[in-house]
Amino acid sequence: MKVNGQPCRTIRLHADGWSVEIIDQRQLPHQFAVLRLETVEEAAEAIRNMSVRGAPLIGAAAAYGLCLGLRQDPSDKALRLNAETLLKTRPTAVNLRWAMNEMSKTLLPLAPEQRTAAAYRRAAEICEADVETNRQIGEHGLKLIEKMALKKKSKPLHILTHCNAGWLACVDWGTALSPVYLAHDAGIPIHVWVDETRPRNQGASLTAWELKNHGVPHTLIADNAGGHLMQHGMVDLCIVGADRVTAQGDVCNKIGTYLKALAAHDNGVPFYAAFPASTIDWKIADGIKEIPIEQRDPREVTHLRGLTPDNTLIEVAVAPEGTAAANYGFDVTPARLISGLITEASIAPASADGLRGLFPQS
Amino acid sequence: MKVNGQPCRTIRLHADGWSVEIIDQRQLPHQFAVLRLETVEEAAEAIRNMSVRGAPLIGAAAAYGLCLGLRQDPSDKALRLNAETLLKTRPTAVNLRWAMNEMSKTLLPLAPEQRTAAAYRRAAEICEADVETNRQIGEHGLKLIEKMALKKKSKPLHILTHCNAGWLACVDWGTALSPVYLAHDAGIPIHVWVDETRPRNQGASLTAWELKNHGVPHTLIADNAGGHLMQHGMVDLCIVGADRVTAQGDVCNKIGTYLKALAAHDNGVPFYAAFPASTIDWKIADGIKEIPIEQRDPREVTHLRGLTPDNTLIEVAVAPEGTAAANYGFDVTPARLISGLITEASIAPASADGLRGLFPQS
Repeated sequence: MKVNGQPCRTIRLHADGWSVEIIDQRQLPHQFAVLRLETVEEAAEAIRNMSVRGAPLIGAAAAYGLCLGLRQDPSDKALRLNAETLLKTRPTAVNLRWAMNEMSKTLLPLAPEQRTAAAYRRAAEICEADVETNRQIGEHGLKLIEKMALKKKSKPLHILTHCNAGWLACVDWGTALSPVYLAHDAGIPIHVWVDETRPRNQGASLTAWELKNHGVPHTLIADNAGGHLMQHGMVDLCIVGADRVTAQGDVCNKIGTYLKALAAHDNGVPFYAAFPASTIDWKIADGIKEIPIEQRDPREVTHLRGLTPDNTLIEVAVAPEGTAAANYGFDVTPARLISGLITEASIAPASADGLRGLFPQS
Repeated sequence: MKVNGQPCRTIRLHADGWSVEIIDQRQLPHQFAVLRLETVEEAAEAIRNMSVRGAPLIGAAAAYGLCLGLRQDPSDKALRLNAETLLKTRPTAVNLRWAMNEMSKTLLPLAPEQRTAAAYRRAAEICEADVETNRQIGEHGLKLIEKMALKKKSKPLHILTHCNAGWLACVDWGTALSPVYLAHDAGIPIHVWVDETRPRNQGASLTAWELKNHGVPHTLIADNAGGHLMQHGMVDLCIVGADRVTAQGDVCNKIGTYLKALAAHDNGVPFYAAFPASTIDWKIADGIKEIPIEQRDPREVTHLRGLTPDNTLIEVAVAPEGTAAANYGFDVTPARLISGLITEASIAPASADGLRGLFPQS
């Protein structure tokens, strides 16, 4: 999507044709800085330190990381070692494992001198496939928005989203925000309520930044505000992303998603989750019982990063010194609260039959 | 309640017997600073700049402010003018208006030379009445906690609270936290989940500080986390305060309260609001339709105060420059989601009959 009026992706090759450019997302929203990666170690570090984040983008960055490694040493041994190093940067990321498997499957059968060129081709394919999947998610979501926008006459359709399921988490488009961008680009008047999404504030730092740069009208709110807005008819539609979806349509997503789904249900506001089929875990059904929820550093709750008046990024304490904090990263929204699941195949009801109908081969 | 092991109130007379000591709550939780007020102007400024906050405490501080004014000029004219000045500091605060009326009613009939002593007596009565009301709220809530704690055997009872309805908002005890302090002091094992309560973070900066100083076990969480905790049986009871309660038992309280009530209802967790009878607005019934919700400065959402590593309190930006934000201060939790209302008279069902039964004369 656009940054400073220019089309932009989260990852691309530099003009030299081999080094890799990424956005240093740790500097957002205060600074737009592009990092150039020249070695596999630099790629691993960018994933580890969260310069790149978001499941699809991590996979793409690791694929290009392998390309950089092959330029220095295309042997079997180096390939395996580098894949191992990259995997360890975020051990629970499903897309990362998938991308490493894809690359190894393509490259190991080839002669070492053919590998580097083949790796760059495969990494580019992985990126393009992600862009296309998300564009399709957007097209299906767009139909939903078009239908709802008709009822609003020419007044803007108010869409609430939680966390960042935008293009910064992917290569382009995003998942929850893909329909938003397509609708905006199609001239449909929309306005987005952006949950700030404590404790890491991805709504404020990433979603608001994305929407601002692409010119989509939006308003930042505290995570506490959505219920009040829905009670007063100020939200027409909720769209969120998903980190893991069960076979019965339970959605595991950033902590706080469940609370918004409850409010949407209580006020008759349609609530959708948007994600690619790769997010579905067909082996589990009951998300609340079966999905272990990662606990993160309590310091994310007791401290906060922000920009000082003299433009320095610093961390400040917001709680008494020594306060114990709990920091659960995700929660599970049961399927019964979800109006529908937006995927690259189509929109399905949030149920076992609904998902199975979309993906009969899975 | 206790600070550094010593009993403390939010407001009291200095050892000189006439000047007024308050806690500068703007410095919390990072610094415990006591301010000494010597003039009515200083009292007005302390209310205006939120050194003191919380409806009961504002009323008490204004009452003492009037005492300070009378010391300089006990005339009718000065009394009226000072009451006017104090009223204007927080024009929507119901307790402030009530306190000014009480003081004027007591003082205007007296000869000027009798007024100062009478004013100090009446201000002390207002403070003592607040302490006693909140202690009674605590006693009723304590019975509830005792009953629930029995079922936990010797495991701690987990209580979730939102915002700060503690002693810092009152003269002592607090409303929602009064039962918590009484239970803790009675040796009942309890643990409090403290919602940080964005955007002003009163949970992190005030509730966590109160509980820490009084020695009550607690854990700070993002506002987003409560739903997940309740889904997993980690919350036994929710108690919140109230800013305004309608005759049918709808509760207007800090923004985000409604979301927690929804989660409690969805998971069968008892949800109580605790407040004095003075909080009830008998003239309105439907809180969602009839209570106008104050919008506060958007900067509270886009910026945040915290302590730097070198112990300076500063404000940092957490959103892109120029981001529009909406900042609704309160929301309304409909009575149907509330298990009961804890008042100084007793605990009532959240309904018109329930409240009328407690306060038949109102």
